[in-house]
Amino acid sequence: MIILGFDPGYAIVGWGVIEKDSRGKCKIIDYGAITTPKEMKFPYRLEVIADGVNALIDKFKPDAISVEELFFNTNITTGIMVAEARGVIIQNAIKKVKALYEYTPLQIKQALTGNGRAVKHQVQYMTMMMLGLKSIPKPDDAADALAAALTHAQTNTRLVDTSMR
Amino acid sequence: MIILGFDPGYAIVGWGVIEKDSRGKCKIIDYGAITTPKEMKFPYRLEVIADGVNALIDKFKPDAISVEELFFNTNITTGIMVAEARGVIIQNAIKKVKALYEYTPLQIKQALTGNGRAVKHQVQYMTMMMLGLKSIPKPDDAADALAAALTHAQTNTRLVDTSMR
Repeated sequence: MIILGFDPGYAIVGWGVIEKDSRGKCKIIDYGAITTPKEMKFPYRLEVIADGVNALIDKFKPDAISVEELFFNTNITTGIMVAEARGVIIQNAIKKVKALYEYTPLQIKQALTGNGRAVKHQVQYMTMMMLGLKSIPKPDDAADALAAALTHAQTNTRLVDTSMR
Repeated sequence: MIILGFDPGYAIVGWGVIEKDSRGKCKIIDYGAITTPKEMKFPYRLEVIADGVNALIDKFKPDAISVEELFFNTNITTGIMVAEARGVIIQNAIKKVKALYEYTPLQIKQALTGNGRAVKHQVQYMTMMMLGLKSIPKPDDAADALAAALTHAQTNTRLVDTSMR
């Protein structure tokens, strides 16, 4: 089973692809980030994100997509732009892959470290260990996307109809 | 010049189409709302919105699209969902129509009533008058979308490269 994870953003969208075998073991396939130029007008940045999401789905043909839910920070303007980008990711994803899952930061921390209050580095460390990597994937956004994908691999019992809003 | 206005939302997306003639006079073409079923999972609601936006653009072939900017209210969860839907509207719009403009609620009030603090009913009344209608268009979301379209007709000098974030 191929799982494509996303860490939403409007400047950087982290992505990571893992394969879960029949015994539940996960291996890494690829990871990276869709980046949008700062000097580009916002609607065009959304277009770059949509094109990137579509290209990744076409390339890796995931069986499931896992997207981190938005934790709303204190900067409302930035938060709105991240949410707008996240809407674009979800809509383009579900158009092609009906198995779309959303996980909160708390669920991701819980799934990977057993502790919903784990710090970022602990989650990244467990992501590295679970995928048998020698170092933490960079950028952070890609590591977060792999963590979202691993969370889905771990908590696979949540079906599409119960996990989505 | 055909202008398609949108009032973003995830349950209801208001839309309105107007035509501005060479003397700057506007007439109504059509208006309505894209609605998404409450019982439908959120990612699928985004898909309904994307399909609706695409169908409207294909039908009315607008020269410009005008989208109301998000005024962030006190309900953060709702705000995030509206922003996600708004991202979907913008990305699908700009894919087909490069002339996409965004206006804040304040700019819309200012353009239609001359007063940035006008109340909703005053804006709706001016929308009705400017389009020569006998009553205020329903639902409110459609009236708001027509107001966004009229705002663009009024403040047409703002070019795509300066109006977008």
